Amino acid sequence: MEKILLLSTLLGLLASTTAYAPNWESLDNRPLPQWYDEAKLGIFIHWGVFSVPSYSSEWFWWSWKGQHLPALEFFMNENYKPDFTYADFAPMFTTEFFSAAQWAALFNASGAEYVVLTSKHHEGFTNWPSKHSFNWNSMDVGPKRDLVGELAHAIRQNTNIHFGLYHSLFEWFHPLYLKDKAAKFETQDFVASKTLPELYEIVNAYKPEVIWSDGDWEANSTYWNSTEFLAWLYTDSPVKDTVVTNDRWGKDATCKHGGYFTCQDRFNPGVVQKRKFENAMTIDKYSWGYRRDARLSDYLTMEELLKTFVETVSCGGNMLMNIGPTKEGTIAPIFQERLLQMGSWMAVNGEGIRATHPWKHQNDTITEGVWYTQKRDKTGGLNVYAISLNWPTGMTLSLGVPMPTTSTEVTLLGYPAPFKWQKRNAGGIDILIPKIGFNEIPCKWAWTFKLTNLMN
Amino acid sequence: MEKILLLSTLLGLLASTTAYAPNWESLDNRPLPQWYDEAKLGIFIHWGVFSVPSYSSEWFWWSWKGQHLPALEFFMNENYKPDFTYADFAPMFTTEFFSAAQWAALFNASGAEYVVLTSKHHEGFTNWPSKHSFNWNSMDVGPKRDLVGELAHAIRQNTNIHFGLYHSLFEWFHPLYLKDKAAKFETQDFVASKTLPELYEIVNAYKPEVIWSDGDWEANSTYWNSTEFLAWLYTDSPVKDTVVTNDRWGKDATCKHGGYFTCQDRFNPGVVQKRKFENAMTIDKYSWGYRRDARLSDYLTMEELLKTFVETVSCGGNMLMNIGPTKEGTIAPIFQERLLQMGSWMAVNGEGIRATHPWKHQNDTITEGVWYTQKRDKTGGLNVYAISLNWPTGMTLSLGVPMPTTSTEVTLLGYPAPFKWQKRNAGGIDILIPKIGFNEIPCKWAWTFKLTNLMN
Amino acid sequence: MEKILLLSTLLGLLASTTAYAPNWESLDNRPLPQWYDEAKLGIFIHWGVFSVPSYSSEWFWWSWKGQHLPALEFFMNENYKPDFTYADFAPMFTTEFFSAAQWAALFNASGAEYVVLTSKHHEGFTNWPSKHSFNWNSMDVGPKRDLVGELAHAIRQNTNIHFGLYHSLFEWFHPLYLKDKAAKFETQDFVASKTLPELYEIVNAYKPEVIWSDGDWEANSTYWNSTEFLAWLYTDSPVKDTVVTNDRWGKDATCKHGGYFTCQDRFNPGVVQKRKFENAMTIDKYSWGYRRDARLSDYLTMEELLKTFVETVSCGGNMLMNIGPTKEGTIAPIFQERLLQMGSWMAVNGEGIRATHPWKHQNDTITEGVWYTQKRDKTGGLNVYAISLNWPTGMTLSLGVPMPTTSTEVTLLGYPAPFKWQKRNAGGIDILIPKIGFNEIPCKWAWTFKLTNLMN
Amino acid sequence: MEKILLLSTLLGLLASTTAYAPNWESLDNRPLPQWYDEAKLGIFIHWGVFSVPSYSSEWFWWSWKGQHLPALEFFMNENYKPDFTYADFAPMFTTEFFSAAQWAALFNASGAEYVVLTSKHHEGFTNWPSKHSFNWNSMDVGPKRDLVGELAHAIRQNTNIHFGLYHSLFEWFHPLYLKDKAAKFETQDFVASKTLPELYEIVNAYKPEVIWSDGDWEANSTYWNSTEFLAWLYTDSPVKDTVVTNDRWGKDATCKHGGYFTCQDRFNPGVVQKRKFENAMTIDKYSWGYRRDARLSDYLTMEELLKTFVETVSCGGNMLMNIGPTKEGTIAPIFQERLLQMGSWMAVNGEGIRATHPWKHQNDTITEGVWYTQKRDKTGGLNVYAISLNWPTGMTLSLGVPMPTTSTEVTLLGYPAPFKWQKRNAGGIDILIPKIGFNEIPCKWAWTFKLTNLMN
Repeated sequence: MEKILLLSTLLGLLASTTAYAPNWESLDNRPLPQWYDEAKLGIFIHWGVFSVPSYSSEWFWWSWKGQHLPALEFFMNENYKPDFTYADFAPMFTTEFFSAAQWAALFNASGAEYVVLTSKHHEGFTNWPSKHSFNWNSMDVGPKRDLVGELAHAIRQNTNIHFGLYHSLFEWFHPLYLKDKAAKFETQDFVASKTLPELYEIVNAYKPEVIWSDGDWEANSTYWNSTEFLAWLYTDSPVKDTVVTNDRWGKDATCKHGGYFTCQDRFNPGVVQKRKFENAMTIDKYSWGYRRDARLSDYLTMEELLKTFVETVSCGGNMLMNIGPTKEGTIAPIFQERLLQMGSWMAVNGEGIRATHPWKHQNDTITEGVWYTQKRDKTGGLNVYAISLNWPTGMTLSLGVPMPTTSTEVTLLGYPAPFKWQKRNAGGIDILIPKIGFNEIPCKWAWTFKLTNLMN
Repeated sequence: MEKILLLSTLLGLLASTTAYAPNWESLDNRPLPQWYDEAKLGIFIHWGVFSVPSYSSEWFWWSWKGQHLPALEFFMNENYKPDFTYADFAPMFTTEFFSAAQWAALFNASGAEYVVLTSKHHEGFTNWPSKHSFNWNSMDVGPKRDLVGELAHAIRQNTNIHFGLYHSLFEWFHPLYLKDKAAKFETQDFVASKTLPELYEIVNAYKPEVIWSDGDWEANSTYWNSTEFLAWLYTDSPVKDTVVTNDRWGKDATCKHGGYFTCQDRFNPGVVQKRKFENAMTIDKYSWGYRRDARLSDYLTMEELLKTFVETVSCGGNMLMNIGPTKEGTIAPIFQERLLQMGSWMAVNGEGIRATHPWKHQNDTITEGVWYTQKRDKTGGLNVYAISLNWPTGMTLSLGVPMPTTSTEVTLLGYPAPFKWQKRNAGGIDILIPKIGFNEIPCKWAWTFKLTNLMN
Repeated sequence: MEKILLLSTLLGLLASTTAYAPNWESLDNRPLPQWYDEAKLGIFIHWGVFSVPSYSSEWFWWSWKGQHLPALEFFMNENYKPDFTYADFAPMFTTEFFSAAQWAALFNASGAEYVVLTSKHHEGFTNWPSKHSFNWNSMDVGPKRDLVGELAHAIRQNTNIHFGLYHSLFEWFHPLYLKDKAAKFETQDFVASKTLPELYEIVNAYKPEVIWSDGDWEANSTYWNSTEFLAWLYTDSPVKDTVVTNDRWGKDATCKHGGYFTCQDRFNPGVVQKRKFENAMTIDKYSWGYRRDARLSDYLTMEELLKTFVETVSCGGNMLMNIGPTKEGTIAPIFQERLLQMGSWMAVNGEGIRATHPWKHQNDTITEGVWYTQKRDKTGGLNVYAISLNWPTGMTLSLGVPMPTTSTEVTLLGYPAPFKWQKRNAGGIDILIPKIGFNEIPCKWAWTFKLTNLMN
Repeated sequence: MEKILLLSTLLGLLASTTAYAPNWESLDNRPLPQWYDEAKLGIFIHWGVFSVPSYSSEWFWWSWKGQHLPALEFFMNENYKPDFTYADFAPMFTTEFFSAAQWAALFNASGAEYVVLTSKHHEGFTNWPSKHSFNWNSMDVGPKRDLVGELAHAIRQNTNIHFGLYHSLFEWFHPLYLKDKAAKFETQDFVASKTLPELYEIVNAYKPEVIWSDGDWEANSTYWNSTEFLAWLYTDSPVKDTVVTNDRWGKDATCKHGGYFTCQDRFNPGVVQKRKFENAMTIDKYSWGYRRDARLSDYLTMEELLKTFVETVSCGGNMLMNIGPTKEGTIAPIFQERLLQMGSWMAVNGEGIRATHPWKHQNDTITEGVWYTQKRDKTGGLNVYAISLNWPTGMTLSLGVPMPTTSTEVTLLGYPAPFKWQKRNAGGIDILIPKIGFNEIPCKWAWTFKLTNLMN
């Protein structure tokens, strides 16, 4: 324990003395802070003025006024007065039931180790009282509260969860952005007066440990001044030692540079990646923002959610699962249920998830739906975790890749007694599944078999 | 089949020629239409202007302006302009997402056989365009739609569900009611100009098969003219043959006269009743109307819901389980989930529920949480259903009251093979529970064991 | 003075002991209370939910939903959300600036002696907390105040003005009225549950001295039960001695029965009438209710207003000049100006108006725009008032009908010195107009010449 | 005429080739464009989000949130929901009745020769779709229209009126301004990203001929970069030849540098000034923005208005008289009346106002309320205009300063015949006032006596 503390102190000192240069070569060399790789599960929160129409998706404004989708024009014509603008939604973003402490408690019970909140989405509305978004921020209009600040405080006060912020570089309809764009990004008025001042503002004010950048794709990182910002962030900012960023810092950067890779939404490659990645996905299959008219069938079941999670983790990724709070500030019970179910699953199976690494194999060769992770225990022994998305039919779970030794032990996380097993002739292992009564089963989805002392 | 049709035709004719007199003696003699006793499961829907504040409960107005509860005064002071009145909520009752067809499909999938919608709650707002509630009805203000009519139509068009209406006799704040009340109910201005005209209106317009009366408790049935109305309803109305009513027709009537008994909310007596009863209860433990700030833990789990249902049915009652739609016209996913889970349960266990009767015993003497129903099969054999709220721990389910014969067979509804059993020495039966894999279990809550050829 | 008091006491006693029968013969025999004939000038106030759209006219609802005038449909489509109903305007009837005391002071300064406020217009919205208009009255929705009560109180507290109430018998869209109408007025559900209860309510609660009935024209007085109500009003009501009513009590009654005659809006017959009449007219030429988009040219000038007034009074009528307050509860400065200008005119010319009677001639035969009134002074001498709408051009005002005697004196009200005059050879009188400086002229419109001791 | 054209062309060329340096010495040397000095009468229009609360004054926001005046806190508490912010007023700035063409016609009839509209007041809300005020401008929120553009177009299309724009340098609550201020104006973030970009934007887009700067007083012109802007405006802008500016360009500039001087609101010095000045004043005595609760007595009478005007002009100033339109886009009838009365007065008396100069005396030494102007007629003769605020009492108007010659003629503007006069012994002139009938008087307030051929 002391050794670890020492090491971490040294690394801290090291980090604190490292200066990064504003170019990708230097920035890409920064080691990823360890906490992030170990966390595996994060919660993504999409909340903003789009939570008011709460219809179609968080891209409502663009779908309506950028794409002129007939469905949205119909929706607006039916339900709002003529000439209603998107800005008119903002006063209805009331958040009267928002309790950051309640949210923090819920997140804590979900098994997640970090949270990423939209500080500002493509609509440009800042969920904090920005100096650079007069009368288009959560203190002047709508909530009349510092949403970012309240949540940051509650999470740090009550939990060990890492607090992160999503931030959109571009804004669909900001006139200065449109002007720069019309100038083929040879002017940077928008970046100078909006993007950068805001990024510095949120880092200094809220000290986020994740900066989840987005909205970069129309311009190169040179337009966004991304490397300059990141050099500061990694070298001089108050979170220089612990902050993690992603890769959405310019159309030349995504999936190529930055911190961890997100590549694209719902990135679930199914194979191990060279660089740490994150699968940002959402429990509502069709939207990141809340939809008032979503039906039960639009939400991922726990089976679907755990399939994605287990696949992602076994390939070395983190899963950032998204929920969309309501304009009133509540998290709908169906989201609460998924989060708490996730928490109950992690309480049993977390050992096979947290701080694990990809094994040499990701999924099994014989039985479909079995994914592997590995982790050393405190004594240095290597444990392999075979997580089966289905309860084995019949009496045997046949696995093709784990090669048992005589000292191999097989257990089911959450179940008291070890399982018998047999070496398969063709290689691999047959785990004998006893008849376990409905009452004794440790969880209802995705079961983790722990195998020790396998052959290397 | 033909015989049954004939019988029903005869009963129909009989019914159609019976004239009831406006007194309880005559009215209480009317046989309960058979469909209702067989249905067992109904869905109650509380929807109205209270769905707008959607806070505290559907008694919001009374809690606020009748009782002056500090919590509600605080809520109003915090979130609304001064002098905001309850009537000011009505324009926000927008129901823009209400699709009666979607609701009907959901209800159909829930296993319920009847639906009861609040046509008018104690607030007096009519969910249909009443002639007697000018500018305080769903066509003039808020929805701008005939909510009752749309739902009645969709349910009849798409399902075999019986359509019923809740109706509150009194209105908390109607000045004519308050005037009558101040006159110790010796005047009947309110009844003459409001209550009765409305009751006739909804029966003639929507032909409900349930009239779920409420709000009777401050006055006797003589004030409400209840017996006159019921005599007409049973003798001359368009639904005279099939309509069912409850007992809330005056403080002298509740639990004494009328149709089936409701006695009190969440009436779950635990023992067989002399008269058909209904347990009207609600999935949100704290409210009948929707609450925007309800948490997951406020909703009954399926375990709790089925416990109530099974207890109620085994004692001869129906369960009317309540949901509260939103002001937007949606049914929250958490309610959808409960309804669909109920439907999946009924798909497996409905045989032991629908058209059953109380057995000579209601619950078991040895094993807690086992409740009985009985029903004759088509060949006249009597089946007893032992519904166990818990999956048997260990290998045996011991039941104290069923006395097996040698030809007794024991099966689990939804499971293919019969179970072995042994006669208990002290009387009763021991059912041997095989090891059933997690994948083979027919449902996840409340299992129904069917026992045939028991001793009488 | 004492004699007058005595007479009025006697008349009061007489009145108080007279019983009127519910038929026109009896009712038409009731003498008109003297105060009304003497008052000459009243203020009419049209205020209600129509003050919210404040567009087109107080008939907004009918023009929109009854007549479907394209201009109004356009206005609604442009400015309100789809399905916006008239009832949705009510919450915006905020009256936050309404000060009954300020209104009373303004009316007092206008020279008017009575005020008639719309207690309920054809829209059915009651400006008092009626027991018969639940949630469609000024206490439940919009003002959250008893507008009628506040104004009645302030006027009585601070002025000697008589307080009266306008009341519409019918309501455009009340379903019970429409039902009665569809039944060719052979049913009276609306009258029984709405019209009559409300009329009794306002008389008992606010003791108005004018009941200005309206909205009668689709049905006979038998439908409205008008004679029954009036018999009570004249015989037993708390205002039986002083109340005045008009003639709009049924399509058989208008201009034939009742109290004074209004016959039609802006009734200005130009000749003496057999029965006392009232010219109800409005300062905004195009509307009785306030119009937010009215232009200056839409308002009567003082010249136009006084022309109407003088013509009306010389023929024996009263003028009830209408203003439309705003939804905020203010009286627009342009209306204030007209009222105060009227008051300044009355301060000078009131002697020729108040308590006068029609003379044998109404207007002059030689000079256009000269109208006559007459009144006895305290000594019994008869004064004739020649009110000239124009300032005489030239040096002489030639009048054809007054026949001077040697003791005739001619003065200009508000001017110190008497005027010289000459008998015209052909009959009549030539008044010599001196050169009066701009600073000495007593008023700026309609000058009153007083002639004493004329030949009979 | 041709000479004048030539001269003006020459001056134009001169102007167009003059380059001004960004320092006060150079800028102060620019000659004032002639049109402005000749115009005398302008209309000031205060319109913005403050027109929504329309209460207290256009400084509503500051009075409420800067000064916390109890009256405003009470007003807000009484009428709005808690946490209502100033930004919440913006969506109610609906301007549905705004017709720029109607306004232009009204202004044209008022006799004014220029109009100055608030493009942006201290609240920061831009009445045009600024690129630098995202979601806080009249296109995104509220009007959904380009108010500045519409009025500019209508005025140029239909009238010869010069169009000008008011612009506030500072914004009470803009966070960047507050930041600069906290830094003692040593940073200029606000000026760089807001003030200057906006000023260039309005000049280029709307080509205003008046820039009425305001809100300068907390900082020096060096902070505002005023001289740089003015150098561009006078040298390179599209309005360089005709634009006029005032003096509110920094606390070191007001009443010292710039274009014409305004010095302070309602600046009416009573004596001739060295530099051209403007008396910016308002018809509502208590506010520049519209007040919904203003009473008639709060508006200047025509007597008061003309007194101010005549005094101002005789001392060489212009009067910029202010009106406050409503949030609906109307100009209240009382303002229409004042404007049209002004127009009717100018139709008669304009000769003594337009293009005049101060005379050697400003007001008379004998008779109070007589003010002088002078102007050469086409033949070069010098006319002196003695404008008397009161109609002469008695038969003589005695003036102390005009020294008549034998060829002196005295007329009253609008009256056909010349007046007799006598030289006063002690110097001066006695004008004999004939008895003019009420019908013959050319106007009702402030009469202009024209005197020709006076001694120099």
